[in-house]
Amino acid sequence: MTRRRPSLAVVGATGAIGGVMLQILSQHADVWGEVRLVDSPGAAGRKLVVRGEETEVLPIEETVFDGVDVALFLVPDEVSARWVPVAAARGVVVVDDSAVFRLDDDVPLVVPEINAHAARRRPRGIVASPNCTTLSLIVAVGALHAEFGLRELVVSSYQAVSGAGRDGVAALREQLALVAGTELGTSPGDVRRALGDGGGGPFAAPVALNVVPWAGTDAGDGWSSEELEIREECRKVLGLPDLKVAATCVYVPVVATHSVSVHARFESEVAVARAHEILATAPGVVLFDSPASGDFPTPSDVVGTDPTWVGRVRQSLDDPRAVEMFICGDNLRKGAALNAAQIAESIAAEFPRD
Amino acid sequence: MTRRRPSLAVVGATGAIGGVMLQILSQHADVWGEVRLVDSPGAAGRKLVVRGEETEVLPIEETVFDGVDVALFLVPDEVSARWVPVAAARGVVVVDDSAVFRLDDDVPLVVPEINAHAARRRPRGIVASPNCTTLSLIVAVGALHAEFGLRELVVSSYQAVSGAGRDGVAALREQLALVAGTELGTSPGDVRRALGDGGGGPFAAPVALNVVPWAGTDAGDGWSSEELEIREECRKVLGLPDLKVAATCVYVPVVATHSVSVHARFESEVAVARAHEILATAPGVVLFDSPASGDFPTPSDVVGTDPTWVGRVRQSLDDPRAVEMFICGDNLRKGAALNAAQIAESIAAEFPRD
Repeated sequence: MTRRRPSLAVVGATGAIGGVMLQILSQHADVWGEVRLVDSPGAAGRKLVVRGEETEVLPIEETVFDGVDVALFLVPDEVSARWVPVAAARGVVVVDDSAVFRLDDDVPLVVPEINAHAARRRPRGIVASPNCTTLSLIVAVGALHAEFGLRELVVSSYQAVSGAGRDGVAALREQLALVAGTELGTSPGDVRRALGDGGGGPFAAPVALNVVPWAGTDAGDGWSSEELEIREECRKVLGLPDLKVAATCVYVPVVATHSVSVHARFESEVAVARAHEILATAPGVVLFDSPASGDFPTPSDVVGTDPTWVGRVRQSLDDPRAVEMFICGDNLRKGAALNAAQIAESIAAEFPRD
Repeated sequence: MTRRRPSLAVVGATGAIGGVMLQILSQHADVWGEVRLVDSPGAAGRKLVVRGEETEVLPIEETVFDGVDVALFLVPDEVSARWVPVAAARGVVVVDDSAVFRLDDDVPLVVPEINAHAARRRPRGIVASPNCTTLSLIVAVGALHAEFGLRELVVSSYQAVSGAGRDGVAALREQLALVAGTELGTSPGDVRRALGDGGGGPFAAPVALNVVPWAGTDAGDGWSSEELEIREECRKVLGLPDLKVAATCVYVPVVATHSVSVHARFESEVAVARAHEILATAPGVVLFDSPASGDFPTPSDVVGTDPTWVGRVRQSLDDPRAVEMFICGDNLRKGAALNAAQIAESIAAEFPRD
């Protein structure tokens, strides 16, 4: 008896996350039957390699979804808003990486290590994958929640510029070329002046030799959209509608891999030794925590890897129910492409064998 | 009636903080009589400009303090431990920027905007100035504490490499020269390999295209010394021995100016409008908080300036007694040289007029 391998469409195949997805599909080559690459008409016609085969990118249109079982959407919000309903209406199961449907009650928001079961109930045929910053921390936090009962999160992010797409990476590379080898960074606004008016790229301030405490759009009352997304998405994935969450999102001059400083308060007391045991065996987590020996996660160590890396685990000195942690995850892998691929693979497993 | 201007010794005049101190002394030129520059024998003999005059650096020895009223110590801990008691025993009032005496009960720890009065009672003739990271946030937090009653701080730092001295800045500049113009930063350890074994300089990991969640030495139970210093120093300066503090210290590839993401919980409810009023008028604070217009502090804007800059002020969504803030302060100015100079000037004002 052989399983019929379901067919897959990758929408946004030429983007930054699409590129990582093609690597993942090549590594997990036995899951899918046909893999169809799709992108905007402007990007169509290009040939990309997936599973060792050159494959032409097709332009997005209704009929491109004919015969497709599962579609991965790795595109900007406005493209998902337009095309996800089209694909779903044609019977395709959609795994969407955009923010458009994540908080809809009839769309599950899934992190397979935590709530894989939620992907089975999808009344609109859509399953959403969380924001990259949520994904950088939630697997580790979720593992501890299962044991200790999470009550509050205070998180500050150190977000990589690839979270703002290829333009973000290009802006950092251009800015670094201008500031490296100079004495810039020691007088007010000198970096900003050296970069000129357009120096920020997609960022609201220079990102080389700087940090930028603003990610996403204005969500009102002083909050950025990314900060509110972390709150709402952590609540939904963990099934904790009253979870207290205070997030501050900050871009740093790192190419890929988001880091997050986490203060997590639980219902019961947290012994660090027990937290270590849980994190050391949790699926999708690497515990890397011996700081006196230089063992703590940094983006340079973590980039390009699949797991969530956790270090600097310590009990809060003034609250035995709280722990501090420093968590790193590649925002293009677990933070985007990998989580979507994992969801899609869990759906592939539902398809009947021949 | 003219005031006799007291004489000043600057110990550590050739260091990174010493260099900023000479600028400040030139700007505040009418405070001091003689200004004597002092450093280790290896650095002695150099000529530095202060208040427009070329001044020779003298080697540190007991007699260098003869005739000195006030001495600023801007040197590593081991140098302060050896020489501060020598100067104090000769009747010099010492303002020390090291960590050696900060937590001693009979040494006041002073931030003039908050507890200037404490500098008047100095049984050992020593007044200590806090750690640069404490100083980057405490003026703003102290202003809100006076109104709302501080109960808890959760802080994550984005620390500039100059916090690790001239070696830290040199390491970042060297590393940037090696990674700028490359495609590094996208595969595990590629930055580390490109920099070679000694790539970290004073840091435990590469700091270019990276962040390093470790500052200071191993303080036990997973904590770094810098994290515990923030806790103890905030408690002492604010006079709140039971203040809850959870700090995570992280170096980022910024030359100068520390940033801190702050979650501050108070005894009473905090209306953002009232917090804005307080911060807008607090001495030593600049409120820069209109994020939708791109107005929030970043190191690039703040470096080289004296005040503590505060932005991203917002009420916590799940706790009306808590606010989130993003605070920036130049770690070499208010974070070190400026605060020490302010303490010394408050002592200078005690000297009798002729």
